Amino acid sequence: MVFRILAILISARVLLAAAIFAAEPQKPPTMADILAASQPADWRPLNPENTLYIELPTGRVVIELAPNFAPNHVDNVKALAREHYFDGLAIVRAQDNYVVQLADPNAEKPELKRKIKNGKATLPPEFERETDPKLPFTRLPDGDVYAPEVGFSDGFPVARDPKSKKMWMVHCYGMLGAGRDNTVDSGGGTELYVVIGHAPRQLDRNVTLLGRVVKGIELLSVLPRGTGNMGFYERPDQLVPLKSIRVAADVPAAERTNLEILRTDKPIFGKLIESRRNRPEAWFHFQPGHIELCNVPIPVRSINISRKPQ
Amino acid sequence: MVFRILAILISARVLLAAAIFAAEPQKPPTMADILAASQPADWRPLNPENTLYIELPTGRVVIELAPNFAPNHVDNVKALAREHYFDGLAIVRAQDNYVVQLADPNAEKPELKRKIKNGKATLPPEFERETDPKLPFTRLPDGDVYAPEVGFSDGFPVARDPKSKKMWMVHCYGMLGAGRDNTVDSGGGTELYVVIGHAPRQLDRNVTLLGRVVKGIELLSVLPRGTGNMGFYERPDQLVPLKSIRVAADVPAAERTNLEILRTDKPIFGKLIESRRNRPEAWFHFQPGHIELCNVPIPVRSINISRKPQ
Repeated sequence: MVFRILAILISARVLLAAAIFAAEPQKPPTMADILAASQPADWRPLNPENTLYIELPTGRVVIELAPNFAPNHVDNVKALAREHYFDGLAIVRAQDNYVVQLADPNAEKPELKRKIKNGKATLPPEFERETDPKLPFTRLPDGDVYAPEVGFSDGFPVARDPKSKKMWMVHCYGMLGAGRDNTVDSGGGTELYVVIGHAPRQLDRNVTLLGRVVKGIELLSVLPRGTGNMGFYERPDQLVPLKSIRVAADVPAAERTNLEILRTDKPIFGKLIESRRNRPEAWFHFQPGHIELCNVPIPVRSINISRKPQ
Repeated sequence: MVFRILAILISARVLLAAAIFAAEPQKPPTMADILAASQPADWRPLNPENTLYIELPTGRVVIELAPNFAPNHVDNVKALAREHYFDGLAIVRAQDNYVVQLADPNAEKPELKRKIKNGKATLPPEFERETDPKLPFTRLPDGDVYAPEVGFSDGFPVARDPKSKKMWMVHCYGMLGAGRDNTVDSGGGTELYVVIGHAPRQLDRNVTLLGRVVKGIELLSVLPRGTGNMGFYERPDQLVPLKSIRVAADVPAAERTNLEILRTDKPIFGKLIESRRNRPEAWFHFQPGHIELCNVPIPVRSINISRKPQ
């Protein structure tokens, strides 16, 4: 009775939805349903101070940085971007089912290599951090092959070990890391890689991750694979030129890519996870019943920012 | 003493290796070491009757078919290839971090669509099969998020459920499947897809897998992503033309791509798995200690077949 009285107060569209719901009372929502019903507070805008734009000849790759997990690397890459360290460098490596990597093609030639002004050439590693109850953690129910616990923290896939009280970001598709040589403190952000294949989880806690591609990954994942060892390009003409890397805050507001990320610390994200563990879409014959960390989508959407007249 | 007497009988190179071994007695072999020490019997050649060549303008993609898991789909795709069904069709879809798919671009136009002669348009599903003690199964020790047991059977990544006594191939990078519509018997092999992203394990047991790319995946993974829904190309000029699909046995011997696959049922493969669970390479600071099914490489090598003089 309560429902009937309420129903006459609401729109025809909701009535229709209620009728469908009555006809199929058991049918859970799809991810599309969940996103369509999302509220503004379920989303958060990117913070321009923690957003990088990698500008390629083919377009812009947008990266959200993770200062909670790699504060020094984030600061250093921003400093390098702000001194235009990266401008004119190149993507030097594309290894299939693994990573693309950008660097100074002349890094091994002392007289030619790009000079660093304010940034640092290397940094101590930030492979993991202490757990902190203040840091959000939405845990996945299905476990993980590599880590005791996995889930999401502020939009990043992470793992956690209650025994050692450490947590760390995980090498899912699209994650951004700082390449290093054999010593753990030989990275720092002058060479950056993005995962473009099946999650190379053996890299977790072996290299500093500092962010995640939230838009434009397909500009990296389609690059011709390098034919040299480990996918390095073998000839200068194969290098993919890098126009620049910019901190979004330094880009005029009218030229920014304005995005919102679904919050991973809200109930809606729990619903999304369930909609991917068991798939209500008609196509699915067998319900997987589980989900692996790197298969959980983290939705991103464009937002319209009203621009001031010029 | 025994070692010293033996040592003088063998080559300087082995002596050097022995000296290195003596200096670092605990160092386990890397995957490269294991493959360098492999014996001919550790490898098996592809069977030309179970090998497909997808010929693209950019080169050849080589696929090993899996008649143990999808006998009817394998037979049907071979029949379709032999009647030249695929020649001149196209790759119609490339969805980032998911799949590329080939099909008849005119499949929805009755007057234009490619006619089938000897093959079948659709088949009953082959999503899983009964377990069989005669079928090799090299089980991984670290478990899996989706299935009770996972491992390898004759070079294919598979999962197994001891309770239901079923086993099935798994959607790792490079796996080949037969696209279908909503009904489970609407596939059959006229539309084929290859995984080019993080393993979409939710598809396991939902669609028939019938093989695996063993060479040339990079010709598929770099294709421009489609901008339509689900990565479909939106304009005819975006389609990637398919020259042909051939059964290797039908290709003159001199034109074949002769490959060997490391046997997954030999002790060497167990050693390889261990070398990937714990990485002896100097670069690794933290030992993962585990490995996930789709991160285990299945080595492939070219072989020289002596050709008859023409």
